[in-house]
Amino acid sequence: MPKIGISRAEYERRIEVVRNELVEKELDALYLTNGVSIFYLTGYYYIVTERPAALIVPVDGEVTFIGPLLEIDHIPQRTRLIKKIETYLDYPGEKHPIDHFAEFLKQLRLHDKTIGIDNLTGASGRWGYRGPPITEKMPKTKFVEERKIIQKMRLLKSKEEIELIKESARWANLAHRFLQDYVAPGMWDVEISASASNDASVIMKKTLGHDYQSIKTGGLPVIAGFRGQVGSKSAIPHSLSTRNMIKKGDVLITGAGADYGGYDSELERTMVIGEPSEKQRKFFNVMLEAQDAALSAFKPGVKCSEVDKAASKVLRKAGYNKYVRHHTGHGLGIEGHEPPWLDIGDQTIMQPGMIFSCEPGIYIPGYAGFRHSDTVLITEDGKEVITYYPRDLDSLTIY
Amino acid sequence: MPKIGISRAEYERRIEVVRNELVEKELDALYLTNGVSIFYLTGYYYIVTERPAALIVPVDGEVTFIGPLLEIDHIPQRTRLIKKIETYLDYPGEKHPIDHFAEFLKQLRLHDKTIGIDNLTGASGRWGYRGPPITEKMPKTKFVEERKIIQKMRLLKSKEEIELIKESARWANLAHRFLQDYVAPGMWDVEISASASNDASVIMKKTLGHDYQSIKTGGLPVIAGFRGQVGSKSAIPHSLSTRNMIKKGDVLITGAGADYGGYDSELERTMVIGEPSEKQRKFFNVMLEAQDAALSAFKPGVKCSEVDKAASKVLRKAGYNKYVRHHTGHGLGIEGHEPPWLDIGDQTIMQPGMIFSCEPGIYIPGYAGFRHSDTVLITEDGKEVITYYPRDLDSLTIY
Repeated sequence: MPKIGISRAEYERRIEVVRNELVEKELDALYLTNGVSIFYLTGYYYIVTERPAALIVPVDGEVTFIGPLLEIDHIPQRTRLIKKIETYLDYPGEKHPIDHFAEFLKQLRLHDKTIGIDNLTGASGRWGYRGPPITEKMPKTKFVEERKIIQKMRLLKSKEEIELIKESARWANLAHRFLQDYVAPGMWDVEISASASNDASVIMKKTLGHDYQSIKTGGLPVIAGFRGQVGSKSAIPHSLSTRNMIKKGDVLITGAGADYGGYDSELERTMVIGEPSEKQRKFFNVMLEAQDAALSAFKPGVKCSEVDKAASKVLRKAGYNKYVRHHTGHGLGIEGHEPPWLDIGDQTIMQPGMIFSCEPGIYIPGYAGFRHSDTVLITEDGKEVITYYPRDLDSLTIY
Repeated sequence: MPKIGISRAEYERRIEVVRNELVEKELDALYLTNGVSIFYLTGYYYIVTERPAALIVPVDGEVTFIGPLLEIDHIPQRTRLIKKIETYLDYPGEKHPIDHFAEFLKQLRLHDKTIGIDNLTGASGRWGYRGPPITEKMPKTKFVEERKIIQKMRLLKSKEEIELIKESARWANLAHRFLQDYVAPGMWDVEISASASNDASVIMKKTLGHDYQSIKTGGLPVIAGFRGQVGSKSAIPHSLSTRNMIKKGDVLITGAGADYGGYDSELERTMVIGEPSEKQRKFFNVMLEAQDAALSAFKPGVKCSEVDKAASKVLRKAGYNKYVRHHTGHGLGIEGHEPPWLDIGDQTIMQPGMIFSCEPGIYIPGYAGFRHSDTVLITEDGKEVITYYPRDLDSLTIY
């Protein structure tokens, strides 16, 4: 059966890389409050709340989770990489969690050491959390802000990660097919989205069998929808929702993805309900031309900004600069957006293993928006477009 | 028809309260990067990404949004409270957004003033965002960390807010009814969740008609599900997902809510598949007794910690202290969790207008968990339980 997550061996390698980096930077431990970083190193996905939690990776010593009691039975079911769990009852508690953390770190013999930390407060701080910074509670410890180790590791995707992202794209494709099949005038976009997402998710689970489970969501692992980009609201990139039902003549912008082993892909399309007008065709074709130009620019050794420029050039030539609302794309993998950015200001050199969305768009206020998004992998000798849903207008017209 | 959001008059009052507080604290403006705070003051919900955005509320002068270009056409469709919009093209850009922000603030004549700010970096910082803090870019401006104004306002819910939360509870109840109706051995919990959520959402939209739209989600506004708390995994409060299908004898812990005008409610139940065993009955009844004890303790003038103690007393008496994994509840409204906390360490005095979840739970590792959650409003003379789904075991047994 297909692999449904990152192997234990790879998680172990990642922790080893972190330890080597710590030695190089003369740090004794890494203190991570970011839930995605914790997942990246262990496979255990922590729902970040007001309750502080952290992963401690010492150079010498056991990988330790410090956090709320409610995770104590959860962690061993999700990972074997976390060897030790230290908990407090709840937040705010009679004794503040940060005071517990100071004690846990002392028990780990880190109180007179140098610790790299991704957040100087020592807590993730969501949902009205308040507390003193850990730095105040541990005057003998040297804390150094350190986010680059994990960020750098995440930039280049491993073979295993690439396989998961490809598998995500497969199920996103199915969900998007259903989305297109189910669209009809008079319908509520949210209902179409729910049906397509449900059907694709159930088929994925039935196909993969017992071992598959989503990592980052308690809901549907495969999602396809419109996020409110329906009719004139397709001109609003982050519209989120609309009051209106779908009608003939509408332009729709879609999006589909799937949580596969905690990884995701990105697939977005512009669709038209009924025979496209000349005006719609004109905008659609320029958008497609801009995406083609951007796609042609992906290759190792090229700067991210060059891809953005390639798309911009087409849009500027068509006189559509005024319809641009965002840059050409972003990295992705575990999170919806990740560095690097396909942006005029990002001079990062593209390397094999980087994965990007490619999605130049144009948005004509009050009329419609036009954007496809595909997931692109940089390979040794060029690129591979991971998403494979049709991009041409004929295939995306709903008759 | 029922009201589907906070009135413009109330948003205006909120901004007025902020301005009065600013004058009192000798601040010239409030600078908010938190998306929920921005929504709370304007009704416009910004999807926080790597792109910095902020709402500027000056004591004198117009409420101004500073942020990415992709929101420019969105804002006027969502709010009339934001009078001015200043944008940059995208992140990171040739010129960093924070440099733009420094200029925007100068144009607003705030560069030599004192500004309260909810985040000293000046940016929300999600998804790999990097940048210098705004404080560095504006050496003549005095920035003062200020989160209490909005936190304090949000603590007490207005009549309009309470109405929205009650309306949310109505649709959560419908979704939960469907959830229970659809549950059967052999099914995947995610599929049941999707069907119940879809059906309730569509019925809500059809019932409320054209004007209704969700505020905080592009997906289904009404959600009921299990978040992986199925069978022995019901013993893991934040299980999120499970590999296993539902089977006879399973204990399930559910959750339901609905985005209504951007507000939510919380309804959770423990259900049993098939005739409950003696052991299941015993745990269920103690959990119910603990919730009853907690519910009896809600009243204005009482400390939050007292509610937690009331539940703990029952659980301790039954010898179940070892099965406790979290405190008794939390505030709610716009976010899933909000202060204050029904926690031994929270001495906040309960006041009319506060809204809490009430959810003492017990979790027996490897066996099952037992927890109901209801939404409780503190009233002038006591409390009102907003959620009304049956709580007794007979009503929650699936035959």
